[in-house]
Amino acid sequence: MRMRRKKHREERLDACSQYFIDDILAYRTDIKAAFDNDAPLRLEIGCGKGKFITETAANNPDVNFIAFEKNLDVLVLAAEKVKNAGLANVKFVAGDAGVLAEMDTSSKCEIIYINFCDPWPKNGYRKRRLTHANYLALWEKLLMKGGAIHFKTDNRGLFEFSLNSFSDYGMRLRNITLDLHASDFEGNVMTEYETLFSQKGNPIYRCEAMFDKNCC
Amino acid sequence: MRMRRKKHREERLDACSQYFIDDILAYRTDIKAAFDNDAPLRLEIGCGKGKFITETAANNPDVNFIAFEKNLDVLVLAAEKVKNAGLANVKFVAGDAGVLAEMDTSSKCEIIYINFCDPWPKNGYRKRRLTHANYLALWEKLLMKGGAIHFKTDNRGLFEFSLNSFSDYGMRLRNITLDLHASDFEGNVMTEYETLFSQKGNPIYRCEAMFDKNCC
Repeated sequence: MRMRRKKHREERLDACSQYFIDDILAYRTDIKAAFDNDAPLRLEIGCGKGKFITETAANNPDVNFIAFEKNLDVLVLAAEKVKNAGLANVKFVAGDAGVLAEMDTSSKCEIIYINFCDPWPKNGYRKRRLTHANYLALWEKLLMKGGAIHFKTDNRGLFEFSLNSFSDYGMRLRNITLDLHASDFEGNVMTEYETLFSQKGNPIYRCEAMFDKNCC
Repeated sequence: MRMRRKKHREERLDACSQYFIDDILAYRTDIKAAFDNDAPLRLEIGCGKGKFITETAANNPDVNFIAFEKNLDVLVLAAEKVKNAGLANVKFVAGDAGVLAEMDTSSKCEIIYINFCDPWPKNGYRKRRLTHANYLALWEKLLMKGGAIHFKTDNRGLFEFSLNSFSDYGMRLRNITLDLHASDFEGNVMTEYETLFSQKGNPIYRCEAMFDKNCC
């Protein structure tokens, strides 16, 4: 789905400037220093229009959130949602989360959310999937011991790829569901995409993956 | 699906008597001694009408197979298939595989096949599922280092339960597929049930699970 360029986008982004981290690499060695308190930190990679991050942040006022989004036309909507909700615990990075490869941070995140990311269905583009081993190496550097990736998708092929990618990387899996909305999982926060896809009757796949091995 | 009692069942079973292990516990400390050679051993838990075990054994003449089945009306068909195929590397146990809990064998299996087992959908019966932790403890005692459970089902709920059960038990997963017949998995041998279910357009779920942790 291609978004039309939002009217007055730059002015609207400017009006939310306090919610943006202009240069995440300014916090290269200490990502948590992007906030002026020491609350636990969670990331969302690709926040879209921001429903998930806004609700999750509102539900967890004692946690800080950094959300990455490269599409400015949806990012502006996300920033406005957070502003309208009066939240102080969310910041956005406008751009590709690949920039995180340059981080070497001593402070770590407790959760990385990856919701309905691009499935890149062609095999030739599989390295672009956010659950490819190359990305897992990146997330591993950012997560604290006991931290987890929380992954949701409506794409069966991407979920299958991701389960294998997590497993092949030696990650531990938990709370796997092949039909989230029919499961007894509690506290699910829907994204905009999730609402759309589940209304069509498509199952939503979800799991959590951890880098710590069971036996270590 | 309830089978009618097969006509002349006892006579037909008697005619295949050389394919039966009457007392598996006679091999309690050395399960491989059920055969008079030292070929690798694989088990199938619930072989049904025997299409899978017959074809798999024919494809792997240098491997021995023991298949468990408690329903004598389908077991007779399985034994006749193996007899008609002239295979010397398959034996059957008539009865519940739970008897394996009494084994304490020094010789081990390389693969345990669990194909389309009863999903026991009611939560109260979950301990009867062959991928419940109680059964995993049993399979663990029987598998050699590097050995694996090969699991197939058409039941989404059972597959979800099993992925979590394997993961929670600390097992490593590989070759997970959420639609076996659309995947690039090679060498799949269909069971009778699998043919039936996949003709209805239902996806077949499959994975392999190993007890050795990555980091050990």
